[in-house]
Amino acid sequence: MEPHAIRILGIDPGLRRTGWGAIACKGNAVTFLGAGSVSSVATDDLATRLAAIHAGLEAIVRELDPHEAAVEQTFVNRDASATLKLGQARGVALLAPAQAGVPVAEYAPNQVKKTIIGVGHGDKKQIRMMVKVLLPKATFDSDDAADALAIALCHAQHREARVRAARLEEAAR
Amino acid sequence: MEPHAIRILGIDPGLRRTGWGAIACKGNAVTFLGAGSVSSVATDDLATRLAAIHAGLEAIVRELDPHEAAVEQTFVNRDASATLKLGQARGVALLAPAQAGVPVAEYAPNQVKKTIIGVGHGDKKQIRMMVKVLLPKATFDSDDAADALAIALCHAQHREARVRAARLEEAAR
Repeated sequence: MEPHAIRILGIDPGLRRTGWGAIACKGNAVTFLGAGSVSSVATDDLATRLAAIHAGLEAIVRELDPHEAAVEQTFVNRDASATLKLGQARGVALLAPAQAGVPVAEYAPNQVKKTIIGVGHGDKKQIRMMVKVLLPKATFDSDDAADALAIALCHAQHREARVRAARLEEAAR
Repeated sequence: MEPHAIRILGIDPGLRRTGWGAIACKGNAVTFLGAGSVSSVATDDLATRLAAIHAGLEAIVRELDPHEAAVEQTFVNRDASATLKLGQARGVALLAPAQAGVPVAEYAPNQVKKTIIGVGHGDKKQIRMMVKVLLPKATFDSDDAADALAIALCHAQHREARVRAARLEEAAR
């Protein structure tokens, strides 16, 4: 048995608004720690906006002191310009925990959905609902924060599966 | 007349290798300060690679103490995955100077080429050659470092044009 709870920070990156959600997990049990979002001012230049997102996430990493972080592997299919914009926010979102020595896992969007709602597709509303079922005490200010909690829950489930597999392997030796 | 030389840091972002090049400009005169590149280890995970690029650029910003920075507005037309990857490196490249309070200008690739080689298209070799003509003392370890110097030179020329326009406007009052 794992003796200590593991704190997981999920991040849903976006230049306008980056969602974050933190949970603690101990075996199969998960509890809500916090969720919210970090915004940038649309009229600021790009570098200033990225610095705002980074500063916000840095403060959250410092306060929550997570053991592990998880970020969605988002793609924007609209156009190259939108994908580049998202990539920039994502780079900053991956950087903040990495700078604090927190390992960052990545999950594809359909992997997150499959883990949370059971199927690889589904809308924002279904995600929000399942997050509320899995974390009854959760409160969030935006879909981005709810998505970040979903990413954290996805990581909790996948890491638990990995921990079990490692234990089975060890026992079989 | 501008009494002091302005130090400009050009950055050519890339996940594998980010080029940087620094120049000083005083009116029309430009001088070479330094150039090089910051690499990440391909086998490391993405967050660690971004942290390596950021740490390298942070050290360069600290050492060179630039007044202004400039980054190319690169697009990758290959696929969304490559664009996202570049965006992530670019986010970190824009962040490093912004965190030090250095304003970051952005230039489209054809704008850089037009400023340096006179036309909006041209290959790496022509860029390298013109960088050597404009900065005879320049040494660089890679095309990325040469591109970063080209971006810095582009910014030097455009900012000088802006400074003159502002002066004319003031004189006309």
